[in-house]
Amino acid sequence: MIKKTKINAAILIIGNEILSGRTQDTNTSTLAKWLNSIGVIVNEVRVIPDIEKIIIDTLNILRKNNDYVFTTGGIGPTHDDITAESVSKAFGLKYEIHEEAFKILESYYNPGEFNEGRQKMVWMPENADLILNPTSGAPGFSVKNVFCLPGVPSILKSMLGDLKNKIIGGEPILSHTISLRTVESEIANSLTKVQDQNKDVEIGSYPFFHAGKLGVSIVLRSENQSKIDNCNLQILEFIKEKKIEIVDR
Amino acid sequence: MIKKTKINAAILIIGNEILSGRTQDTNTSTLAKWLNSIGVIVNEVRVIPDIEKIIIDTLNILRKNNDYVFTTGGIGPTHDDITAESVSKAFGLKYEIHEEAFKILESYYNPGEFNEGRQKMVWMPENADLILNPTSGAPGFSVKNVFCLPGVPSILKSMLGDLKNKIIGGEPILSHTISLRTVESEIANSLTKVQDQNKDVEIGSYPFFHAGKLGVSIVLRSENQSKIDNCNLQILEFIKEKKIEIVDR
Repeated sequence: MIKKTKINAAILIIGNEILSGRTQDTNTSTLAKWLNSIGVIVNEVRVIPDIEKIIIDTLNILRKNNDYVFTTGGIGPTHDDITAESVSKAFGLKYEIHEEAFKILESYYNPGEFNEGRQKMVWMPENADLILNPTSGAPGFSVKNVFCLPGVPSILKSMLGDLKNKIIGGEPILSHTISLRTVESEIANSLTKVQDQNKDVEIGSYPFFHAGKLGVSIVLRSENQSKIDNCNLQILEFIKEKKIEIVDR
Repeated sequence: MIKKTKINAAILIIGNEILSGRTQDTNTSTLAKWLNSIGVIVNEVRVIPDIEKIIIDTLNILRKNNDYVFTTGGIGPTHDDITAESVSKAFGLKYEIHEEAFKILESYYNPGEFNEGRQKMVWMPENADLILNPTSGAPGFSVKNVFCLPGVPSILKSMLGDLKNKIIGGEPILSHTISLRTVESEIANSLTKVQDQNKDVEIGSYPFFHAGKLGVSIVLRSENQSKIDNCNLQILEFIKEKKIEIVDR
């Protein structure tokens, strides 16, 4: 299959616990790093509450505007887990027992343990494709370009292996970081000039405070290594002129 | 002033570094917890790239749909800091030097240090209100219901003190957590019944894995303490029946 160059995605974090600040989301960072590594650019992330209409409306916008949508959260056994039913409604599909998922969980649990609560986790949009879960059995699922993953970070991570088989990526996005013992305002003008001369390289500037000292990380991102290298040389040049120290970071 | 009961907000995280996964956003959690404590409910969070048109379009949607919008990121001195100019355009306001911000930074820096790079940080939408920054001098700003904060978490936190004077909150959202040595599927049905009998209390169920053991935290949220207490009693009842252990968490 020929790889398209620009493949993009949205991440949809579903969960009141993130919006209340109770839980620190880490799934965005996990998914974004992984997607970048397989050449999928994350265009946007949204965090929304466990409210059916909002899930449906948001999903219908995101799936039209992106090659892929990845949702996290709301596929467990409790009353506040409404992602699977909402996805069914967003696509106008029946919400029903998924035979294969039923078999997986039936054999995952000991006899008698596959109770009503757990059986909720095999209700999915009709004909959904499963995303296998090596950690805790209950699979995620996908419908067309929408991939539904759990909210628990360790379980989500363990499902990326199977998910990888289902995603067609583009050219991996390469990056190079130069960390400096300086402050942003010392390099702002020089960096602007380098950015103007290297439109195809995304140059980010990020202040940091580490081990009691201030610094700035310059991050160069592109699909093309030689463009990054060229940009890097121009930055090294002005750093040398300004006698700024490069640091490990 | 009479407090409205429901005050809502959106958080807009501006920054390629979050979308690439390089940086773990923690500002959402900081802001959300703080907003909840002053009675402001976070309706949604969006993370978007440093692209002017996207910032303008997203901001114009969010500021219409919410009582408040809080942006983070993009107000530093480098070329990728385009939040202030984008906010100006979103409101159709001039982007100009803010006299008061200029004076603040002029006296903050030593003579000769207030260079061109740093002067970029005093360009703002005309007549913007400043949000004072006790950490590093450069103020944030607000225009109408939009409040623009920096991306560096420690600096953002230090600005909440001044920000508090500018926000009118509602009734604080109260919460109570019960953590149990169980799994979600054991309590799912009972919890659904309690939720059905307590429509005004938001009941969330969150599995955790701590110190080698699985558990579930049940979180009750409402503006009304007696409704939380009532709901709590019903949960304690079924926990006792099921002989589930309550744990500290």
